[in-house]
Amino acid sequence: ASAGGAHAAGEHGSGPVFVTPPHTPTKVEVGMYLISLVEVSAPSESFPTFKAEIFLDLEWHDPRLAFSEESIGTEREVFLEHEAELELERIWWPDIEFENEQGERHTESRELVIHHDGHVEYSERFQGVFTVDMELIKFPFDHQNLTIHAESFSWDDRYVVFEPLPEKTGFNEDFKTLEWTLHDVHTEVHAKKEVRSDEAFSEYVYSVNVDRDPGYYLYKIVIPLLIIVAFNWATFWMPGEPASVRMERTVIALLTVVAFHQVVATNLPRIGYLTFMDGIVYVAFASVGLTMLSTIWAQRQEYLGKEENVAKLDQIGKVAFPVIFLLAVLILYLVYHT
Amino acid sequence: ASAGGAHAAGEHGSGPVFVTPPHTPTKVEVGMYLISLVEVSAPSESFPTFKAEIFLDLEWHDPRLAFSEESIGTEREVFLEHEAELELERIWWPDIEFENEQGERHTESRELVIHHDGHVEYSERFQGVFTVDMELIKFPFDHQNLTIHAESFSWDDRYVVFEPLPEKTGFNEDFKTLEWTLHDVHTEVHAKKEVRSDEAFSEYVYSVNVDRDPGYYLYKIVIPLLIIVAFNWATFWMPGEPASVRMERTVIALLTVVAFHQVVATNLPRIGYLTFMDGIVYVAFASVGLTMLSTIWAQRQEYLGKEENVAKLDQIGKVAFPVIFLLAVLILYLVYHT
Amino acid sequence: ASAGGAHAAGEHGSGPVFVTPPHTPTKVEVGMYLISLVEVSAPSESFPTFKAEIFLDLEWHDPRLAFSEESIGTEREVFLEHEAELELERIWWPDIEFENEQGERHTESRELVIHHDGHVEYSERFQGVFTVDMELIKFPFDHQNLTIHAESFSWDDRYVVFEPLPEKTGFNEDFKTLEWTLHDVHTEVHAKKEVRSDEAFSEYVYSVNVDRDPGYYLYKIVIPLLIIVAFNWATFWMPGEPASVRMERTVIALLTVVAFHQVVATNLPRIGYLTFMDGIVYVAFASVGLTMLSTIWAQRQEYLGKEENVAKLDQIGKVAFPVIFLLAVLILYLVYHT
Amino acid sequence: ASAGGAHAAGEHGSGPVFVTPPHTPTKVEVGMYLISLVEVSAPSESFPTFKAEIFLDLEWHDPRLAFSEESIGTEREVFLEHEAELELERIWWPDIEFENEQGERHTESRELVIHHDGHVEYSERFQGVFTVDMELIKFPFDHQNLTIHAESFSWDDRYVVFEPLPEKTGFNEDFKTLEWTLHDVHTEVHAKKEVRSDEAFSEYVYSVNVDRDPGYYLYKIVIPLLIIVAFNWATFWMPGEPASVRMERTVIALLTVVAFHQVVATNLPRIGYLTFMDGIVYVAFASVGLTMLSTIWAQRQEYLGKEENVAKLDQIGKVAFPVIFLLAVLILYLVYHT
Amino acid sequence: ASAGGAHAAGEHGSGPVFVTPPHTPTKVEVGMYLISLVEVSAPSESFPTFKAEIFLDLEWHDPRLAFSEESIGTEREVFLEHEAELELERIWWPDIEFENEQGERHTESRELVIHHDGHVEYSERFQGVFTVDMELIKFPFDHQNLTIHAESFSWDDRYVVFEPLPEKTGFNEDFKTLEWTLHDVHTEVHAKKEVRSDEAFSEYVYSVNVDRDPGYYLYKIVIPLLIIVAFNWATFWMPGEPASVRMERTVIALLTVVAFHQVVATNLPRIGYLTFMDGIVYVAFASVGLTMLSTIWAQRQEYLGKEENVAKLDQIGKVAFPVIFLLAVLILYLVYHT
Repeated sequence: ASAGGAHAAGEHGSGPVFVTPPHTPTKVEVGMYLISLVEVSAPSESFPTFKAEIFLDLEWHDPRLAFSEESIGTEREVFLEHEAELELERIWWPDIEFENEQGERHTESRELVIHHDGHVEYSERFQGVFTVDMELIKFPFDHQNLTIHAESFSWDDRYVVFEPLPEKTGFNEDFKTLEWTLHDVHTEVHAKKEVRSDEAFSEYVYSVNVDRDPGYYLYKIVIPLLIIVAFNWATFWMPGEPASVRMERTVIALLTVVAFHQVVATNLPRIGYLTFMDGIVYVAFASVGLTMLSTIWAQRQEYLGKEENVAKLDQIGKVAFPVIFLLAVLILYLVYHT
Repeated sequence: ASAGGAHAAGEHGSGPVFVTPPHTPTKVEVGMYLISLVEVSAPSESFPTFKAEIFLDLEWHDPRLAFSEESIGTEREVFLEHEAELELERIWWPDIEFENEQGERHTESRELVIHHDGHVEYSERFQGVFTVDMELIKFPFDHQNLTIHAESFSWDDRYVVFEPLPEKTGFNEDFKTLEWTLHDVHTEVHAKKEVRSDEAFSEYVYSVNVDRDPGYYLYKIVIPLLIIVAFNWATFWMPGEPASVRMERTVIALLTVVAFHQVVATNLPRIGYLTFMDGIVYVAFASVGLTMLSTIWAQRQEYLGKEENVAKLDQIGKVAFPVIFLLAVLILYLVYHT
Repeated sequence: ASAGGAHAAGEHGSGPVFVTPPHTPTKVEVGMYLISLVEVSAPSESFPTFKAEIFLDLEWHDPRLAFSEESIGTEREVFLEHEAELELERIWWPDIEFENEQGERHTESRELVIHHDGHVEYSERFQGVFTVDMELIKFPFDHQNLTIHAESFSWDDRYVVFEPLPEKTGFNEDFKTLEWTLHDVHTEVHAKKEVRSDEAFSEYVYSVNVDRDPGYYLYKIVIPLLIIVAFNWATFWMPGEPASVRMERTVIALLTVVAFHQVVATNLPRIGYLTFMDGIVYVAFASVGLTMLSTIWAQRQEYLGKEENVAKLDQIGKVAFPVIFLLAVLILYLVYHT
Repeated sequence: ASAGGAHAAGEHGSGPVFVTPPHTPTKVEVGMYLISLVEVSAPSESFPTFKAEIFLDLEWHDPRLAFSEESIGTEREVFLEHEAELELERIWWPDIEFENEQGERHTESRELVIHHDGHVEYSERFQGVFTVDMELIKFPFDHQNLTIHAESFSWDDRYVVFEPLPEKTGFNEDFKTLEWTLHDVHTEVHAKKEVRSDEAFSEYVYSVNVDRDPGYYLYKIVIPLLIIVAFNWATFWMPGEPASVRMERTVIALLTVVAFHQVVATNLPRIGYLTFMDGIVYVAFASVGLTMLSTIWAQRQEYLGKEENVAKLDQIGKVAFPVIFLLAVLILYLVYHT
Repeated sequence: ASAGGAHAAGEHGSGPVFVTPPHTPTKVEVGMYLISLVEVSAPSESFPTFKAEIFLDLEWHDPRLAFSEESIGTEREVFLEHEAELELERIWWPDIEFENEQGERHTESRELVIHHDGHVEYSERFQGVFTVDMELIKFPFDHQNLTIHAESFSWDDRYVVFEPLPEKTGFNEDFKTLEWTLHDVHTEVHAKKEVRSDEAFSEYVYSVNVDRDPGYYLYKIVIPLLIIVAFNWATFWMPGEPASVRMERTVIALLTVVAFHQVVATNLPRIGYLTFMDGIVYVAFASVGLTMLSTIWAQRQEYLGKEENVAKLDQIGKVAFPVIFLLAVLILYLVYHT
C-alpha cells in the first residue's frame, strides 16, 4: 500500500512520485499568525510591498494515511524540517501558494504530524514579501490594509475547500514598529476564478489593519513648513520697509517652499494624484505667492506715491493671511478626510 | 520501455538520463499570463528592466508517454512541485528559456499532468527580470512595451514549433500600480536565428503595453518650475526698481533652474538625447536667460540715463515673456509628440 | 535498532524519517557567544535589526544513542558539516529556532559529536538577522539591548527544557565597531506561550548591552548647529545696523536651521515622538525665532523713532539669549535623561 | 568500461568519481557570445565591474566517450540542464573558470551532446559579473574594453589548449543600452602563469569595445556649468555698478561652481587623478576666481577714485574672459585627448 | 577498508559518515593568494569589511588514504568541483573556516588530489567578506591592513597545526583598483584560545597592506574648501566697504563651510573621534569664525567712528589670516601623523 495518494511513475516504482487527490473535496483548515513585520515599503516606493514573518497551520483529514498504532509503535508520526518536506512530496497535500506574493516564500521551520486516524497537521514558519495596494490620498494620516491571499496552486474547489481556524489566527501583540500600529485581523474564504483552471479555486484571505503614525511627518515637515510660512507674514508687521527688501525676503520664502516640496516629493511614490501632504504644500505655495503679489502691488503703490495704501495692506494682511491660511488647511482636511 | 525519449547513459541504466526528441516537430502551445509587475525600472536606470510574476502554461503531445488507464489506475498522472521537476528531467520537454531574461527565473509553483493519451500539460508560476528597451524621448508622457521572448534552448524549429494558447493568455486586471497603467496584451510567434544552432528557433513573444502616469512629474517638477519662471516675470511689473536689484533676483531664479535641472537629471538615465522634460527645462533656462539679458540691457540704459527705455521694456516684457514661453512649450510639445 | 528516536516512514524503511522524543523532558544546555556584529541598523531604519555572527552550542543526553566503544571502534562519533546535518535528521534533536529572527539563519560550520554514553554535543557558527526593539528617545545618548530568543519549534516544555551553559556564553572582547561599545551579556530561561501549541515552550534569551558613541552626532550636527545659533547672536553686538540688514541675517539663520533639521530627520526613523536630538533642534529654532521677533520689534521701534529701545534690546539680548539657550538645553537634558 | 576518464573512488564503485585526463593535450574550441549587458558600473564605482548574459560553447574530442550507434540506438546523446551537469561530473571536461569573475557564474541553461565518435559539444547560457579595469582619464569621452578571461581551473596546458571558435563568437547586435555603444569583439589565446600550478595555463580572452555616450554629461553638467560661467561675465557688461554688488554676484557664482563640483564628484570614483571633466570644472573655477580678483581690484580702484580703470577693465574683460575660457577648454581637450 | 578516517554511522553502513582524526597532530600547509579585491568599504561604513577573491591551497598527509597504483590504475586521484566536495565529506580534512568572515564563503572552483602515498592537495577559489578593523584617524592619508584569520572549526591544535606555504602565497600584481594600492603580504601562525574548545586552536593569519590614494579627497574636498576660505580673506583686501556688506559675505562663507562639513560627514562613519580631515574642516571653521569676529569688531569701530582701526585690521588680516591658517594646517598634520 503506497502513502496517501502518491505513486511512483514508471514500472519499477523508483521514479518521481505522482499523486491522486482524495475522492471527495477535502476541507482544509487554515490558521495564519503574523509574528513580525520585517518591512513595510516607504511611501516613496512605486510598487509597495510588505515583508513579514508568518506562522502557518494547515489541518486536514486523509483516510488513506491512517495507520495502526501497534504496527508503527506510535500514535502519531512527527516529521521535522527537511524530512517533513520529503514526506509532503510523498503524500497528497493542498499545495498552498500565495497569490499576491513576490517570489518564493522562505520556510524557516516546518513540522508535519500524521495521526493514526489520518488527521494531518502541517505547520511552518516562513518569511514572504507580499504586494500591497496602498491608498495614499490621506497621507500621512493614512491607514493601510495588509493582506495575504492563499490558494491551492493545483487543486481547484472540486478538491480543496479552505476554512479559517480561529485558534491559530492572529498577530503577535508584543511586536512593535516605529512607524506603524497594528490592530485587528480578519480572515475570509471565497471562491475565485483563476487562469489556471476552468473551475474556481477556494481562496483564503488574511488581512491586518495598520495605521501610520503621522508624528514624523508633522514634526519634520509640516511644522518647519509652517514656520517658514509664518515668518513670511513678518512682512506685514514691519512698517516702512522698501518693497524691494520685502520682495527679496518673499523670494527666499518661495524658494524654500520649492525646496521643501522636493523633500516631500522624495517621500512619496510617483503617483498621479495629490495627497493631503501635497495639499498642505500647495496651500503654503499659495500663501507665499499671494504675499509676493501683494508686495508687487505695494511696490507699484510706492512708485505711484500712494504709501498709505501699503499701510492699509499691512493692516489687512496681518489678520487676513493667517486666517485664510488656517481656513484653507481646515477645508483641505475636511475635503480629504470625508 | 523507458519514459518518453529518456534513456540512462551508461550500460547499467543508473547514470544521468539523455533524451531523444519525437520524430516529427512538436507543436507546443504556450499560454502566458501576467499576475503582477514587481518592479519597472525608475527612469534613472541606465539598463532598464522589469520584474514580473508570470503564470506559464505549456501543452504538447508525446505519444511515447501514453499509458493504459487500467495498469496505472488513473487516467492522468499529476506531478507537483519538486516531483514535477524530476519528471521533466526524465521525459522529453521543450526546454524553454527566455531570451531577454536576466539571470534565472525563480519558479514558485509547478504542476505537470500527463494524460493517458500522451497529452502533456505543464504549468508554473515564476518570477523573472526582463530587459526592456525603453524609449524615453516623450518622457514623462511615454508609453512602454514590456516584452518577454521565449524560445527552446536546445530544440530548434525542426523539433519545436510554438503556438499561442489564447485562453491562458492575458494579464491580471485587478493588479494596480501607482505609476503605470497596463492595457492590451499581444502574442506572436516567429522564427529567429540564434548563435546556438544553424537552424532557426521558433520564438514566442508576449508583450503588454503600459502607460506612465505623468501626474507626479507635473505636480512635483513642472508646476514648481513654472512658478519659478513666472515669479521671474515679476521684474516687468515692478517699475522704478534699480537694475541691480532686478539682476539679483534673476540670478537667484537662474540658479534655482540649474538646481531643478539637477533634480530632473537624477530622474533620467545617462542617455545622450534630450527628453520632452529636458526640453521644458531648457525653455525655462532660455526664459530666465532672456530676462537676464534684458536686465543687463536695462542697466545699460539706466547708466546712459535713458530710463524711458526701461519702462518700454517693462511694457513689452509683461506680455511678450508669458506669450513666448507658452508658445515655446506648445511647439516643443508638437515637435516631441508627432 | 534504529538511531535515537528516528524511524523511516513506510513499510520498507526507505522513505522519509519520523522521530519520537525521549520519554522524559530533555534538559538542553545552551551556550551562545557573539563573535561579531555584522551590522546594527542606522537610526534612520523604521524596522531596526542587528546582524551577527554567533557561535551556538547545544548539549543534551539521549540514552537511545548510546553505543558500545568496541563495536564502533571509537568512543565518540564526530560528524562534520553536511554529514552533521544529515545525522541530525536521523536522530531526535531540540529543533531550535530563533523567535525574533528575520529569515533563516545561515550556518557556516557545524559539528555534531555523539558520545558512547548518549551525551550529544552540537555546535555551529551561523549568521542571523534579528529584530531589535530600539528606544531612541535619548538619541544620540541611547543604549540598546540586542537580544536573541531561542525556542524549540516543535517540542514544547513537556519535551525540551533549556538551561544556560555559562562556559560557552559571552562575546568576543577583541571585536570593535566604530559606533557601538559592547558590554555585559545576560542569559535567561523562561516559559512562553506560543500559537504553535497549547503548552508553553521553554525560551532561552541571550542579550548583550551596547552603547552608542555620540561623538559623531556631537561633532557633525550639534556643534555646527551651535555655531549657527551663536553667530545669530552677533546681531546684538553690532550697534547701529538697520533692522532690515539684521532681518536678512536672521532669515538666513532660520533657513539654515530648517536645512539642519532635515539632516537630522534623515538620521532618524519615521518615529512619532521627539528625541533628545530633535529637542536640541527645536531649541535652536526657538532661539532664532525669538531673534527674529526681537528684530521685528526693533524695526517697529526704529520706524517710530525710538532707537534707544533698540540699544536697550541689544544690551539685554547679549546676555539673555546665550543664557536662555544654555538653560533650555540643560532643562532638556534633565527632562530626557531622568 | 567506465565513462571517459571517470572512476568511482573506493573499492565498490559507489563513492565520488575521480577523473583522468586524456593522454595527449586536448584542443578545446571556445565560442563566446554576448547576449546582453545587464549592468556596467556607474563611473562613481571604486571597484568597477560589468555584468553580462553570455552564451558559451565548448567543443572537444575524447575518444574514450565514443559509442556504437547500434547498441545505444541514437547517434548522439543529448543531456539537458541538470542531467548535463550530472554527466559532466562523470566524464572528463575542461573545468572552465573565469579569472576576472566575481563570485560564481549563474548558469541558466545547459546542453551537453556526446556524438558517437567521441566529439563533445557543451553549451550554456550564464550570467556573470566581471572586474573591468576602467581608465577614466578622458571621462566622459572615454572608451572601455570589457574583457572575459577563461582558463581551466585544474588542467594546465599539458592537458588543455584553447582555440577560438569564430562561428560561435560575437555579440547580439539587437541589444541596445542607453549609455553605451558596443562595437567589435576580439578573441585571443595565450599561455599564462598562475599560482595554481608550476606549468602555464592556456588562457582564452574575449573582449568587446564599448564607447560611452557623453550626451548626458554634456547636457546635464557641462552646459549648465557654462551658463553659470557665462552669466558671471555679465559683470563686465553692466557699467557703473558698485564693486560690492559685483562681488556679491561673483561670490554666488563661485559657490555654485563649488556645488557643481560636488555633483561631478559624486559621478566619479575616488580616483587620485583628474579627469577631463574635472579639468573643465577647474577651468570654470579659475574663470570665476579671476573675475573675483578683478572685482577686488576694481573695488580698490573705486576706493582710490580711479573709476576710469574699472571702465577699462570692463572693456578688456568683455573680450578676454570668453576668449581665455574657450582657449583653456581647447587646450584641455588637446592635452587629454592626445 | 574505509576511506581515511571516515565511517558510516549505523550498522548497515548506509547512513551519514563520521570521521576520526589521524593519531598524531597533522601538519597542514596553507597557501593563500589574493586574486582581486571585490570591494573595500567606503569610509562611511560603520561596520567596515572587504570582499575578495581568494585562491586557497591546503596540503597534508594522511597515511590512511594511501593506495597502490596498480589496483587503481593511476598514481593520483583527481576529484573536481562537486565530486571534490563529496570526497571531502568521506575523508578526514582540516575543516577550515575563517574567523573574521561574515557569512559563508562562496566556493567557485575546487580540486582535490589524493596521491598514492597519502599526500593530499586541496585547492579552491572562493569569494568571501571579511571584517576589517579600520583606523581612520589619519584619513584620507590612512593605511589599512586587510587580514584573513583561518582556523579549523573542529580540530584544535592536538589535531591540526598550520604552517605557511610560501610558494602559493601572495597577491595578484596585475590587479588594480582606483582608490587603493596593495603592497606586501605577511603570513603568520599562532595558537589562539576559542570558546569552541578547552584547547587552543592553530590560527593562520594572512594580511595585505593597502594605502588609500588621497587624491580624490584633496581634489574634491580640500581644495574647494581652501578656495572658500581664501576668498573669505578678500575682505581684508577691499578697503572702504561697509561692515554689513563684509558681514554678509562672511555669513555666506560660514554656511558654505557648514555645508562642506556635511559632505565630509557623509564620507565618514559614525565614529566618535575626529579624523585629520575633520581637523582641516574645523580649522576652516575657525578661520571663517575669526573673520566674522573681526568684522563685528570692525562694525563697532565704524559705529564709534574709529575707521582708522578698520584699516589697521585690514593691514594685519591680509598677512595674519593666511599665515595662521597654514600654520594651523601644518600643526594639525604634525599632530595627526606622529
